[in-house]
Amino acid sequence: MIKIGIVGAAGYSGAELIKLLLNHPDAEISKLFGNSSVGNRIENVHTSLRGAISLEIEQFDPSALSGIDLLFVALPSGTSMDIIEKAYMNEVRVIDLGGDFRLNDQTIYSQYYKHEHTATQLLNESVYGLSEWNEEAISSAKLIANPGCYPTSILLAIIPLLKNELLKDELISIVSYSGTSGAGKSASTNMIFSEVNESVRAYKVGSHQHNPEIKQYLENFGGKKVSFSFIPHLLPTTRGIYSTIHANVSEGISEKAVMEAYESHYSVSPFIRLIHQAIPEMKDVLHTNFCDIGFKLNDNNSLVVFSTIDNLVKGAAGQAIQNMNIMFGLNQTEGLLNCSKKKKLQRA
Amino acid sequence: MIKIGIVGAAGYSGAELIKLLLNHPDAEISKLFGNSSVGNRIENVHTSLRGAISLEIEQFDPSALSGIDLLFVALPSGTSMDIIEKAYMNEVRVIDLGGDFRLNDQTIYSQYYKHEHTATQLLNESVYGLSEWNEEAISSAKLIANPGCYPTSILLAIIPLLKNELLKDELISIVSYSGTSGAGKSASTNMIFSEVNESVRAYKVGSHQHNPEIKQYLENFGGKKVSFSFIPHLLPTTRGIYSTIHANVSEGISEKAVMEAYESHYSVSPFIRLIHQAIPEMKDVLHTNFCDIGFKLNDNNSLVVFSTIDNLVKGAAGQAIQNMNIMFGLNQTEGLLNCSKKKKLQRA
Amino acid sequence: MIKIGIVGAAGYSGAELIKLLLNHPDAEISKLFGNSSVGNRIENVHTSLRGAISLEIEQFDPSALSGIDLLFVALPSGTSMDIIEKAYMNEVRVIDLGGDFRLNDQTIYSQYYKHEHTATQLLNESVYGLSEWNEEAISSAKLIANPGCYPTSILLAIIPLLKNELLKDELISIVSYSGTSGAGKSASTNMIFSEVNESVRAYKVGSHQHNPEIKQYLENFGGKKVSFSFIPHLLPTTRGIYSTIHANVSEGISEKAVMEAYESHYSVSPFIRLIHQAIPEMKDVLHTNFCDIGFKLNDNNSLVVFSTIDNLVKGAAGQAIQNMNIMFGLNQTEGLLNCSKKKKLQRA
Amino acid sequence: MIKIGIVGAAGYSGAELIKLLLNHPDAEISKLFGNSSVGNRIENVHTSLRGAISLEIEQFDPSALSGIDLLFVALPSGTSMDIIEKAYMNEVRVIDLGGDFRLNDQTIYSQYYKHEHTATQLLNESVYGLSEWNEEAISSAKLIANPGCYPTSILLAIIPLLKNELLKDELISIVSYSGTSGAGKSASTNMIFSEVNESVRAYKVGSHQHNPEIKQYLENFGGKKVSFSFIPHLLPTTRGIYSTIHANVSEGISEKAVMEAYESHYSVSPFIRLIHQAIPEMKDVLHTNFCDIGFKLNDNNSLVVFSTIDNLVKGAAGQAIQNMNIMFGLNQTEGLLNCSKKKKLQRA
Repeated sequence: MIKIGIVGAAGYSGAELIKLLLNHPDAEISKLFGNSSVGNRIENVHTSLRGAISLEIEQFDPSALSGIDLLFVALPSGTSMDIIEKAYMNEVRVIDLGGDFRLNDQTIYSQYYKHEHTATQLLNESVYGLSEWNEEAISSAKLIANPGCYPTSILLAIIPLLKNELLKDELISIVSYSGTSGAGKSASTNMIFSEVNESVRAYKVGSHQHNPEIKQYLENFGGKKVSFSFIPHLLPTTRGIYSTIHANVSEGISEKAVMEAYESHYSVSPFIRLIHQAIPEMKDVLHTNFCDIGFKLNDNNSLVVFSTIDNLVKGAAGQAIQNMNIMFGLNQTEGLLNCSKKKKLQRA
Repeated sequence: MIKIGIVGAAGYSGAELIKLLLNHPDAEISKLFGNSSVGNRIENVHTSLRGAISLEIEQFDPSALSGIDLLFVALPSGTSMDIIEKAYMNEVRVIDLGGDFRLNDQTIYSQYYKHEHTATQLLNESVYGLSEWNEEAISSAKLIANPGCYPTSILLAIIPLLKNELLKDELISIVSYSGTSGAGKSASTNMIFSEVNESVRAYKVGSHQHNPEIKQYLENFGGKKVSFSFIPHLLPTTRGIYSTIHANVSEGISEKAVMEAYESHYSVSPFIRLIHQAIPEMKDVLHTNFCDIGFKLNDNNSLVVFSTIDNLVKGAAGQAIQNMNIMFGLNQTEGLLNCSKKKKLQRA
Repeated sequence: MIKIGIVGAAGYSGAELIKLLLNHPDAEISKLFGNSSVGNRIENVHTSLRGAISLEIEQFDPSALSGIDLLFVALPSGTSMDIIEKAYMNEVRVIDLGGDFRLNDQTIYSQYYKHEHTATQLLNESVYGLSEWNEEAISSAKLIANPGCYPTSILLAIIPLLKNELLKDELISIVSYSGTSGAGKSASTNMIFSEVNESVRAYKVGSHQHNPEIKQYLENFGGKKVSFSFIPHLLPTTRGIYSTIHANVSEGISEKAVMEAYESHYSVSPFIRLIHQAIPEMKDVLHTNFCDIGFKLNDNNSLVVFSTIDNLVKGAAGQAIQNMNIMFGLNQTEGLLNCSKKKKLQRA
Repeated sequence: MIKIGIVGAAGYSGAELIKLLLNHPDAEISKLFGNSSVGNRIENVHTSLRGAISLEIEQFDPSALSGIDLLFVALPSGTSMDIIEKAYMNEVRVIDLGGDFRLNDQTIYSQYYKHEHTATQLLNESVYGLSEWNEEAISSAKLIANPGCYPTSILLAIIPLLKNELLKDELISIVSYSGTSGAGKSASTNMIFSEVNESVRAYKVGSHQHNPEIKQYLENFGGKKVSFSFIPHLLPTTRGIYSTIHANVSEGISEKAVMEAYESHYSVSPFIRLIHQAIPEMKDVLHTNFCDIGFKLNDNNSLVVFSTIDNLVKGAAGQAIQNMNIMFGLNQTEGLLNCSKKKKLQRA
């Protein structure tokens, strides 16, 4: 049994981690940490957890780490660097669901996150937890920077195209829509139901903190410089991200070549579902760790790729547990697909 | 032209008042007052008003009342008594959309509203603005207490049954569902989209401040003591109230008698639509000043009445303007139904 | 391994059965049957199942039953009696999620379901699958009539009050709201998004087919005659039922007595969560087999009970699997709560 | 008074036409035509119209055109060519809200609309009703082809950029999201609430019938050949279209130049609102005839334009009435903005 601590248990990613871990055969939640919720039992904070778990939320303290094998940190960016440093010094492995250890360049970090980085010595230690593209590094990591929700949907869709050199050297257009849980569980007037319902709006165009993350890892894993425009929108749903990506392929690239790019990289990836002859729908991935990818190549070499995930699962807690599985030598799907290891995909 | 001032222009009822008054042939918005929004132009607060009105929001001051014929006050209960007193002393007529002047009994007021009443001398002056039942008093009032949203939907449905003595002397069960705009435009965690969407919850059962208002005016207008249980719920929609009322009729009361009760009182009421042989749907009244009422009488003398309104129109700003029309000797429907007075209901 | 067949795999209850059974350690889906979807692979019908199961949907034929231990039937009422008869004759146990075998009285059946019953000889064989109240009969049943979604939420909330004789002998008022998946996956103009969204409507008042089911089983399990009014409404959500029940308790009945009624009957029921000092919220039970029950007793002996379930889980597929577990001697929670049997509710 | 006939009164565009015309001071609805709804009073088809209009829906017949000044046709494409021909021969002016008379090229028409054009002789007579760009031709037209909903939002946003030659000669990326009312009021499984809610999906990528319409009129009004990719999506809202357009501007083009392009063309357009220093939100245009346009120019010459309309108003019935106003020499805003012509935009 992997003994788990969770920092930020009162947020939406915290709740999702708890739900998934309760269903994980090899993990056990030992400690829950929080701030404003300290002293409450978790089922009074997330009332959907009544009857499933009844731990009290504690104030984080390094001494509480004894006996913990892995610490998930699900705090807003900029609020957890101190905690992560302490865990690191105590040799507790960490998966950080926030954005603090994803970027190499602290100047870019402070430009986009609007505060200084105070644990720069750990930037070299952290491993980007894009499970499908970084498995080896993840397996031996001490500190995982779990990918952002938008980047997960976008990187998984574009990297194979870059790796296989299918795209023209031109601007890629990325339009993404996200449900509201991506904004977290905190009060703000522009997130109340009356303001979000029956509407849509773009936001943080050109200034979203996921811009440099997308750029760094498209280039790291794709192996070449890219130029793109990322335009996030708020969607009147609770969960889900839907990314519509428009790029031009090089002359002569066929639909078959595009499909081969995806298949060659993802044929062994249990959570990537390539959709043939249909267009992905967001509802198909909700409450799952799947990323559904489909595409349409038009006559004029114009390629449109669709990629959809559940922002709280594959875009946060699910991928974090997928990374935990990799770190601890378990099957990637443990606790994330069917319950019993003995069951295989049932085919007629 | 009636010169209008609006206090609380930055809220949802304020926005609705402005939209309706812009379409009113005999009224003109002269002044907008606010607190945290002072100094902003109204179209930057309610961006849907861009291109329609561009007044700057001012801090309320009695001197600003000169030239104002009517002041609408759309503030949270307990925050406007001072303003209303000043307007009253300056002989400016007031329609208060808040709850401060609806209850006769200040003890009950402070019990339900959780603060003291500081303008009790005006309690005798205020007239309850339930347009369909209090027209005469409204026409000469200096201070209108505009009804609450839940009470409007409920009183209009039950009073005719009481007046015509159709109900057994038993507990009436009132289950109401409201959209989120009823909670106003302010930040709170339990009103964010992720918490309200795909859910339903009852709240303030037995303690809602509309309880004593419903009781007082059922008895005032219905002419007899009543006992009821009012159970409000939050609905994942932006607008609308749907009240399902269950009562027992006296032995021998027929469907015809029930319909006659409604028709005898409402045949001349332009905003009450009696639905025969169908059940009211909330969407039919949204963005209108209508109250749709329907009912089903079961074999066992059990009567179910359905009543639905738009909480921001008939439940707030629309009824307030209906009351303004009555106060200023205009047709009740002015600015609330079709534009042109010359047009009549078009029948084949 | 229990070998499972599912008739009606293409509907919403069928999809939910499949998802839950894929996570069940002791069950295996062997056959999927359908009508218009015959010849399709199930993941092309329910695209969310891609990557999880790939059986082809077959036309039902008694010969296909060989090797099947249990047949779930999830068809519209009136369309499955022939299939169920054949399974019964072939000694295959059946859990019917439809309404055909719930009522004792075929006259009432045809009055509410608008067609004749053609397998009346099985009416005496069928056992009502309200897991919490009929466990012994379920354990040895050959044919389970799985309860309707509305009745499940209502019966679980009211039976303890009847058993403990807390209620006055008066009309009980039951107002229920259901998400749209209860209406199934078939095209009809009044169920399209534009008609349901941002609205609410009551329907089938006094004529809903769940009326006699609620009556029969309130009286069977509660042990006394009852009179009630059941008023179903359509809610703009995909899932969930929320029932608000209003009744009068006998003089002198305390809040403590009400809570004891629930606790005495449900202290050992893993899927009933009694909510103290709060009001149930629908979102807390979605995608779970829980029924959350809370209540408020007002001064005037007026009791309001709130009961909420996921209509597709506890109101259909989840309770069906709970019944399967009982029939096959498994722990009731198998496949419905946490994955691992070894895990217990984690308490601090 | 302009005497109006409406064909297709039972659909969503028909309902919106009726609501807007009831508020129009110079128009009067004389006749309503339909098919399956013939014989019903309109308020029984659109129950929201109860108390406002009570005409009976008739079968269309040329003889019914006598006394009609203008016929609005709001039928699915391919079903109204015969009716429009007859109206034309009877010298009744027509505004067609369908797609049959928008395209010059009948080959392209039959390719995208999947049936032959049977009134090709009228193709030269029809005038494209994009009010802001075709006012002169509209004013004298006998047959208006009212623009599609997507094209309206897109053309209004892109034409000024083409006219002012701001864009590089490259592929333009257009991602649009539409509410469900755009799909009309007819039953289909993939439009039921349970399938649309909490989801998003692209559809008809590369094959949508609005593709050739967008191309033809971008080139007609913009004055140059263009290449674009149009990717429509379904949004879980009832109304509204939100188009996010990504293009590259020529070297040296500034934000000021872009704003000037819009201002120079739209400064006199009452229904175009240019949003400075903010991003348009869909909710701001719902139930209005406004098109809100905003943009963001990034450092790398990448321009993102946002354009949002209400699909049933500016994207259908509202623009149709705007065109009627132009045809009959009225102020464009008549019946579409404030009620009284005497009222001007109120500025402090």
